This record gives sequence, C-alpha cells and structure tokens, in this order.
Amino acid sequence: MSRIPEAVMRRLPRYYRHLDSLEKKDIIRVSSKQLGESLRMTASQIRHDLNFFGGFGQQGYGYNVTELKQKLVHILGIDIIRNVIIVGAGNIGNALARYGSFENEGFKLLAIFDNDEKLIGTKIRNILIHDSEELVQYIKDNKIDIVVLTIPGKFAQQIAYISQQAGAGAIWNFAPVDVTLEGIEVENIHLTDSLMTLSFRLACEEKGGC
Amino acid sequence: MSRIPEAVMRRLPRYYRHLDSLEKKDIIRVSSKQLGESLRMTASQIRHDLNFFGGFGQQGYGYNVTELKQKLVHILGIDIIRNVIIVGAGNIGNALARYGSFENEGFKLLAIFDNDEKLIGTKIRNILIHDSEELVQYIKDNKIDIVVLTIPGKFAQQIAYISQQAGAGAIWNFAPVDVTLEGIEVENIHLTDSLMTLSFRLACEEKGGC
Repeated sequence: MSRIPEAVMRRLPRYYRHLDSLEKKDIIRVSSKQLGESLRMTASQIRHDLNFFGGFGQQGYGYNVTELKQKLVHILGIDIIRNVIIVGAGNIGNALARYGSFENEGFKLLAIFDNDEKLIGTKIRNILIHDSEELVQYIKDNKIDIVVLTIPGKFAQQIAYISQQAGAGAIWNFAPVDVTLEGIEVENIHLTDSLMTLSFRLACEEKGGC
Repeated sequence: MSRIPEAVMRRLPRYYRHLDSLEKKDIIRVSSKQLGESLRMTASQIRHDLNFFGGFGQQGYGYNVTELKQKLVHILGIDIIRNVIIVGAGNIGNALARYGSFENEGFKLLAIFDNDEKLIGTKIRNILIHDSEELVQYIKDNKIDIVVLTIPGKFAQQIAYISQQAGAGAIWNFAPVDVTLEGIEVENIHLTDSLMTLSFRLACEEKGGC
C-alpha cells in the first residue's frame, strides 16, 4: 500500500521522537546537518527521507521544528486515536497494559482478553480482562485497529487469523513465532532476536572480528 | 568490529529460529528454496547470507538442518552463557525478569537493581533486587555481559555510561531515549516506534495509499 521504502518508513518514528524532544526544549528550527548529527546520518540522507513527505527545508533556514513534527504526526497517523486490545494477560501483556506511554501517542487500550478464569473479570489499570471466548464478538462490535498478541506461540497464528476475520486492522505480535497473514498489517516483535544480535557482536569482539 | 553487513546480521536470529523449529519437527535437510519460501526471501538471498558464515549448501542436497543450526548458534555466540542484569524493576523490568525464554538461549539473569526501598531485598523469580547504589561494584565484581535498562529515559544515558565504565559488555536499552556510547555494544528498543509503523500503514490504507 505504500510507495515509501520500508527503510525510510522505519526511520520516521525516530525523526518524530527527535523533533518532539527539540520542541520540548523550545528549539524553533533545525538544519538537516544538525538533524544528521543528532541522528547519526548525513544531511543528505535526512533531506532525502523527508522529501518523501514534502518536508522541504528552506535554504539557509532549515526546518521549522513544530511544522515538521506536525507533518510527521499526520504521516504516522498518530493524530488519530487507535483502538487497541491485548490478548494474553501474562507478563508481557501485563507490562504493556501498564505501560502508559503508548496512550500519549494516541493508542487507546480498550480491553484485555485471557482464558484464565482467575483473571477474567479483574482489571489492569481500570481495563477489564474479558474471557477470550468473547474476543471475536468484541472485535465485531468495536472498531479495533490493533490487536496485541501476548500469548504462547502455538496460539498466535490462529488468534491473529480470527482477529482478522472479525475485522481487526493490524496485529502487533509478541508471541515468539512469525505471524504471517495476507491483507492485514502485522508487526512481529522478537525481543530475543535483539538480544542475539548483542550476543553476536560480543562474540565478534571476543574473536577479534567477524 | 564486524565485516558482516548489518542487514545480514539482523536476519541471523530469524534463520536460527526457523532452523530450530525445523529440527524440532525432525526435519533433517532443507534447500535454500524451501528456506526462502518459509522466510519470504529468494533462494539466492538465503545463499548469499549464509555464505558469509561458510554455511555452504550442497548442490542437490541443500543444507543439513542441525549442522546449519549449530553454525548459527556458534556465530550468534549463544553457545556461551551471557550474564545479564536488569536495572529497573518496574513493569517492563518485571516482565523481562519473569520471561523465562531468554534463559533457553543462554542468557542468565544474575541480579536486578532498583532504587525503590520497598523493592530492594525482595525477589522476582528467585532473583534478588539490589539497591542501585551497589550497581557499579556489582558489575566490577562479576563479569556482566549485558545490562538491561528498564528505567525512565532521563536516567538511561548516565546509567549506561557508568555501567560501561564499570566493565559491562553491552547495553540493552528499553528506556524511551537513544543511548549513544562509543566502545560498547548498544541495542535501543523502542516499542512505540513499532506501534507507530503500524499506525502509519493503517493511515496509508485509509488514505488509499502513501
């Protein structure tokens, strides 16, 4: 659906975060050179990326921080409230439910689902834990943009599939398997992969190079 | 420290996970074509990546699953036990401490640190929570490979720096800022970035393209 190269798209949240921090420091304008130094990129890479979105700096002035940030907010779609549900109230599900900073960016947690009878009916941060049996009907009855999967790997593909069938917009998957579905946006998060890349680099150092 | 392109290195954990799952299904050999189909890459990309590590398939046979997996285990350095500590026993720190599957890959959680007096001296999954004041001495006294930062953003850079000075090998940062340090391996995890890319793609769909 997007003409924007994947690599460019993946850098947009970083631009957004950086511009947000500049704005909080009351910085009004920034050059592509300064952006590049802060983000460890070249000025021309910055200009190249931002040109995709009509983020045109002015020669000798640079970018207006607030304007560019607002452009990114719109491009990233975080000016729209996104309804989110979490499936799986275990450790990761719990942590995500308690982690308030998503809500600052417009992600609104509506409900949590679990199949553990001891948890059903209890709340995390005022958000009710529903019976997993109600998941499909809940997605049908509410506009659910993002389904967060924090369940064991063996259930992930199936729950993702029924969520899609019920009308969910996207899957944010923390189960340790790759969910693959056509016709729905999926982000698979593999925290262990990131740990392994650290381990790889430590091993390289120990071997004196890779 | 590494001649291996970053993009190739980032794919290695996926290869490892996939080979591990094939092995668990008692599959003995696999072709680059089959690997490519499972991992949504071309056979030649697979061969190109694996050639960096001397993972040479045989014409007409393919790869031996267990051999190739063992090569990846060694390359990723996960045949070595990595000592890990967590700084910050809040929601994310807690979830990571309870999340056992890291330990299956050779990451061993030795200790947790926090500055909350109510938490100091208590345990998560038999792992003691120490006073943050003891962090530097603990890193000096033990070989700490990876320091996990699950603390507020404003402390992250400083705690990363003192961990490096005390002798830690790498930083796995979950605080919502980019830790930047020379001479130490750093992985910055920004969960919100990944949510924003989902939001971006949903917004693209709604606009009929980006």
